[in-house]
Amino acid sequence: MAEGSVDIDMGRQVLAANDAFYRAFAARDFDRMEDLWAAVAPVSCIHPGWNAVRGREPVLASWRSILSNPDSPAVVAANVTAHMLGGAAYVICEERVNGAVLIATNVFVVEAGEWKLTHHQAGHVLARVVDVQSGSDDRSIN
Amino acid sequence: MAEGSVDIDMGRQVLAANDAFYRAFAARDFDRMEDLWAAVAPVSCIHPGWNAVRGREPVLASWRSILSNPDSPAVVAANVTAHMLGGAAYVICEERVNGAVLIATNVFVVEAGEWKLTHHQAGHVLARVVDVQSGSDDRSIN
Repeated sequence: MAEGSVDIDMGRQVLAANDAFYRAFAARDFDRMEDLWAAVAPVSCIHPGWNAVRGREPVLASWRSILSNPDSPAVVAANVTAHMLGGAAYVICEERVNGAVLIATNVFVVEAGEWKLTHHQAGHVLARVVDVQSGSDDRSIN
Repeated sequence: MAEGSVDIDMGRQVLAANDAFYRAFAARDFDRMEDLWAAVAPVSCIHPGWNAVRGREPVLASWRSILSNPDSPAVVAANVTAHMLGGAAYVICEERVNGAVLIATNVFVVEAGEWKLTHHQAGHVLARVVDVQSGSDDRSIN
């Protein structure tokens, strides 16, 4: 298989892992969320407006708190791009929540053959910037 | 050399590249900033409150605009941690600006033997969260 094909295949797997993250987030499914985070690699997370939360237990505790909030709104990912870094990858995507737009960076590593989150940062978009490279596709691998 | 030593050595190089980024930022040195961004890997950047800027030219144009603003405040990095991802790495650090605290994710790749920025996201910290893992060291490799 050509190297490009492997990259595209891995890129699709990263996009699937990113989709799984937002499905668990929208469904408030803590058990699935816990499974999506790395168990070996160091874990960190920057929620909108927060400082960094570092370490698997504190990160999962923050997600347990967020997902247990019955008022937490539904979230949908959009304009998702995956960027391969050899055996790791990062994804940039919008998070659309109740008409607001947030923007996120999600860093993934492979553990036991599966893409797992090692870092997430999300922040509110206050001004929309023209994306000169965006096309009609909502998801891409770069 | 043991694998751990290589990681620590590479981690120090990533921290040095991260330091160079904030020195160029604080000095409003666009030429140095341009040199710090990847020339081969895809480049993207999320400034505080902005949506993602994608592509080397738009990203550098955004930095040229920011660095050419005489009112742009000095920035100092703090609580810097580097996380190795094989041939890539990401750094989490605070950006202290005029008494405000921002938090950033900086993703680096190696090009021609040097660590280069491929992605940056920064956002304002509105609430400080206790960092249960922080010690007395201001910089670390994880």
